[in-house]
Amino acid sequence: MAGFERGEQRALARAISRCESGAGEPLIRALFQRAGRAMTIGLTGPPGVGKSTLTASLVTLLRRLGKTVGVIAVDPSSPFSRGALLGDRIRFGEHFVDDGVFIRSMASRGHLGGVAGATADAVTLMDAFGYDVVLIETVGVGQSEIEIAEVADTILVALQPGSGDTVQTLKAGILEIADVFVVNKRDHPMALQLERELRSMLELLDHDGWVPKLVATQALDGTGVDALWAAAVEHAAYLRASGEIVRKRRAAYEHRVRALALGALEPRVDGAVAALPDGPDPYAAAREVVKAL
Amino acid sequence: MAGFERGEQRALARAISRCESGAGEPLIRALFQRAGRAMTIGLTGPPGVGKSTLTASLVTLLRRLGKTVGVIAVDPSSPFSRGALLGDRIRFGEHFVDDGVFIRSMASRGHLGGVAGATADAVTLMDAFGYDVVLIETVGVGQSEIEIAEVADTILVALQPGSGDTVQTLKAGILEIADVFVVNKRDHPMALQLERELRSMLELLDHDGWVPKLVATQALDGTGVDALWAAAVEHAAYLRASGEIVRKRRAAYEHRVRALALGALEPRVDGAVAALPDGPDPYAAAREVVKAL
Repeated sequence: MAGFERGEQRALARAISRCESGAGEPLIRALFQRAGRAMTIGLTGPPGVGKSTLTASLVTLLRRLGKTVGVIAVDPSSPFSRGALLGDRIRFGEHFVDDGVFIRSMASRGHLGGVAGATADAVTLMDAFGYDVVLIETVGVGQSEIEIAEVADTILVALQPGSGDTVQTLKAGILEIADVFVVNKRDHPMALQLERELRSMLELLDHDGWVPKLVATQALDGTGVDALWAAAVEHAAYLRASGEIVRKRRAAYEHRVRALALGALEPRVDGAVAALPDGPDPYAAAREVVKAL
Repeated sequence: MAGFERGEQRALARAISRCESGAGEPLIRALFQRAGRAMTIGLTGPPGVGKSTLTASLVTLLRRLGKTVGVIAVDPSSPFSRGALLGDRIRFGEHFVDDGVFIRSMASRGHLGGVAGATADAVTLMDAFGYDVVLIETVGVGQSEIEIAEVADTILVALQPGSGDTVQTLKAGILEIADVFVVNKRDHPMALQLERELRSMLELLDHDGWVPKLVATQALDGTGVDALWAAAVEHAAYLRASGEIVRKRRAAYEHRVRALALGALEPRVDGAVAALPDGPDPYAAAREVVKAL
């Protein structure tokens, strides 16, 4: 903790590792009240859409604006997650020796509290450590793109032209969680068509309050990344002005507590179930188990 | 219950509906001790492999052998599940007016105890009702093919030649739960290759006890269905002779009780979480929630 207090990145890294191994409780208990100041941004989308490049471009922009950034990559296909530091150094050049940037990959399977549990802990730690912005990159497959909405205030959903992404998006329920849509690879011949499709889908939705923004980027050369950042800032301002931030953070808090509580109950249920005699019907037995807790 | 006691199929149908709607507890409590006599068989495999046709052929054979059969279709793609009775009548002809056969489709989303909960209840009811054999048909996608192993003593896994099914099977973990492999559409040009692949995969596995059987069928004309039934009977005899049946049913029982207990705890956890004040860190809050139960 002393290293953490002194702002040493290695202490932060160790703290996150403890959360990943399921031993983060004392750290979170000590630091939770200090968190809540950072702007938390989730970036999700299908593999290959360029999420890591977008992340790198955003980090470059934020550093230029004088903001410090913590990055969490939960995406198993992310180069950060594979520890492929050599490749990242080329792209991240300056950031790897920059104290204002901290990049961390997370296992996509968690302990107590599930996948989101350790990620939420890492966000709390980076926030308490003092980063202005915490950016969480997750691959948009299965559950994770829904869970990201429980750990970040603002969700960016990146889509790729010519990949049939819009339909996929609707299926996965990403549409409901997106605060900003990013059409990356905007020089692609299908980019305008994807933008049109997205706009007409957005018109069909019944928005009260925030209407999702649509931004086109070319993450590789940084084109449009300033507009993406502006959209994220606008959403954060909307959350505060409308008071929506309170409802949103409360829902995230409840989600997190619920996962931790169920995670703590499961082994106790298993223990009580294993101790059951044969014989009683399953419903009677389940009542016994619940009573035994 | 009086109708159930008199062996009226409509009473059985109503009882299963009550379990589906989450109100089955009194029925199961009253009837659980009467169950355990039926031979329970799960049939799973990818869509299009011919599971419904296999089921129909098995039912025909079993009726010829003088056995009564209850069928549960959890497969959402099954013609039984869609209530497509017209098509079934053509195929099931005699069975639809046969008191010795009862066919029931189940919703693939369950209440308390999850998908497997209502299915397990239906198996208990059919077993207690007196059917000699209870056959559960589920599509082999996602979780369901694993859960089927918790409600049936003997698992038949149907595969289709020329569909790349073997590799898919390995991925989905079906291999571990199969007691009998069924290569359906055995006149397909790739049937022998699929059989060879399966045999070499089976040789790689370290079996102690039961070695999965491999049977080739042509469900449409009933070819090989007698051999399939013989393999299922052999497995059932093995379970009893080895005492494995005791371990297996205990595991299924614990699985069922666990799901019911967690299902009962979840709304209580949600209630306790909603009642939390803002402020305490999530771990402290989760401890409060667990304590409040």
